[in-house]
Amino acid sequence: MTLPAIEAVRWTPDGALRIIDQRYLPEALIERDLRTVEETAEAIRTLAVRGAPAIGVAAAMGLAAAMRPFAAEPGAVLWPRISAGAELLRATRPTAVNLGWALDRMLRVADASPEDIVSALHREATAILEEDRAMCRAIGEHGAPLLRDGARVLTHCNAGALATAGIGTALAPVYVAHEQGKRIAVIADETRPLLQGARLTAWELHRAGVPVTVATDGMAAALMRAGEVEIVLVGADRIAANGDVANKIGTYGLAVLARHHGIPFYVVAPSSTFDAATPDGTGIPIEQRDPAEITHLGSRLLVPVGVPVHNPAFDVTPAALITGYITERGVVETLGDPHAAFTLAPPA
Amino acid sequence: MTLPAIEAVRWTPDGALRIIDQRYLPEALIERDLRTVEETAEAIRTLAVRGAPAIGVAAAMGLAAAMRPFAAEPGAVLWPRISAGAELLRATRPTAVNLGWALDRMLRVADASPEDIVSALHREATAILEEDRAMCRAIGEHGAPLLRDGARVLTHCNAGALATAGIGTALAPVYVAHEQGKRIAVIADETRPLLQGARLTAWELHRAGVPVTVATDGMAAALMRAGEVEIVLVGADRIAANGDVANKIGTYGLAVLARHHGIPFYVVAPSSTFDAATPDGTGIPIEQRDPAEITHLGSRLLVPVGVPVHNPAFDVTPAALITGYITERGVVETLGDPHAAFTLAPPA
Repeated sequence: MTLPAIEAVRWTPDGALRIIDQRYLPEALIERDLRTVEETAEAIRTLAVRGAPAIGVAAAMGLAAAMRPFAAEPGAVLWPRISAGAELLRATRPTAVNLGWALDRMLRVADASPEDIVSALHREATAILEEDRAMCRAIGEHGAPLLRDGARVLTHCNAGALATAGIGTALAPVYVAHEQGKRIAVIADETRPLLQGARLTAWELHRAGVPVTVATDGMAAALMRAGEVEIVLVGADRIAANGDVANKIGTYGLAVLARHHGIPFYVVAPSSTFDAATPDGTGIPIEQRDPAEITHLGSRLLVPVGVPVHNPAFDVTPAALITGYITERGVVETLGDPHAAFTLAPPA
Repeated sequence: MTLPAIEAVRWTPDGALRIIDQRYLPEALIERDLRTVEETAEAIRTLAVRGAPAIGVAAAMGLAAAMRPFAAEPGAVLWPRISAGAELLRATRPTAVNLGWALDRMLRVADASPEDIVSALHREATAILEEDRAMCRAIGEHGAPLLRDGARVLTHCNAGALATAGIGTALAPVYVAHEQGKRIAVIADETRPLLQGARLTAWELHRAGVPVTVATDGMAAALMRAGEVEIVLVGADRIAANGDVANKIGTYGLAVLARHHGIPFYVVAPSSTFDAATPDGTGIPIEQRDPAEITHLGSRLLVPVGVPVHNPAFDVTPAALITGYITERGVVETLGDPHAAFTLAPPA
């Protein structure tokens, strides 16, 4: 039993949201307690807490935590406060659908709780947290059989324990297979610009005793050609109704490369990531982030002053390149059939 | 006329080798004068001077410069000194074939010059320097017609003026087309780990007035899918007899992505890059570089301590993925026919 003893998001004893501030990893493990909507929004916006499932959980918990001082307020005062808080949190990041999904659950609960709204919010956020943990475990159980003893897995960005409240999405099958005694080795794409693979995936796998090697994003193709990769597991920020997947920039290229080399390419995500309201990938909003994420690293200037950069946070992988989807409900191998993806996991 | 006024390698008035130390770009433009074989070898090994054509020129000039103090020595003393110097320089980097090609030329001249060997070495190094400049110009003239007015070019690493004694290889068609008044826009892959695209390609194109945008390596696929790339131009460190190409890590993945999107993919290199003695890409030695290039950037730790990294400097692109080769002798579109590549440019 060597699952990662990491809690990316959790409650403090007094009901604040405690997060691991992921901007400082791997140099330092720093936790922060968030008590206001503004603090939580800032943490999500700056990627102190990140990963589609984790930001949904964090938004729900952060909203509940922020309302605690106002428990005595009448509903007519509290309601606009909750609503405004939810909208501030919703606007932090546009691509992940789990964020809006979690906030909508919180608003429905507030709506249905004429008395003691604040306690109801806390209970709902706790339910979202616990469901996320259970979801990760179920994903891991469903996905582990896809990994043989000795499997070599490539992953991109971080869809691990640090991206969820539990043992991750794309990394959950790795952790469960490892726990089952299979020898699993992972190659983590470093994932520029913010290096979530190098900094976070490598950190949590290494901590859990899973062999991990870091490669720059440009090495994936050569590693595939050399036979070093036998399966690709990635997370998802939003899955459209036809099975198209928005995930960290670089995912689409990996899917093309995997297809070229005949390597199975799985998307691993909770069913809350499926967005029936978005017909296909062209409808998914893609967040454009600050150029400074690419032009600077620490105090170092990496791009000449005056030169523009592209910095989309995500790309869209068409369903036709995806071997299958691993969710908490099971594995569906669509073999590129969008209809199969559509029928896989309608939102709960 | 806005060609880059950059001389990556040149003579000082007193016959030393002057290089732009590329480790400091884009933060500072620093030149260094090299007077010993050891200084030149260190500059090549640390990538202060880099790029397959430039390291061939630099090795020749550095060898000639280093022998100047010994002009009065008898041949029996000077010869072992030249030979040892050449071998030290040859061992600095294993993949680029131009390095050995230039040093072999120097050794042949030394062998054929019973008197005033040092002057003969200087003349031969100057010839290699001037041929490289002319080669770049000829490559640019041959390649420019492939770029329409308004063309959007993707390139990887730096195969520009900073990688040669002239206007570059992969960037030479861009500079010539720009000089001809065509509007050319370039996307430069940042090219991890050493960021030659972000730091060097962006710097020299911006300086020359060519519009350039930097993208992380993982963005290329999404940019291709979005129609932002209509041709890919890359350099080469060695081209095997069957047309397989060793070039900066990440090149092979770009070739697969270009094929998937129906985008022409050209390798741009002088004929001295063709190595008839290596039948195919499997025989090209791939340099493995220091893990610290990936694990650290300046003072920042990017990968947890204890986690291994992959750091091959190059990968091999099979000839079948290459649309054509642009050399100083012309353009050959092989359409993946290795025989056509073989007949293209046997070494001079």
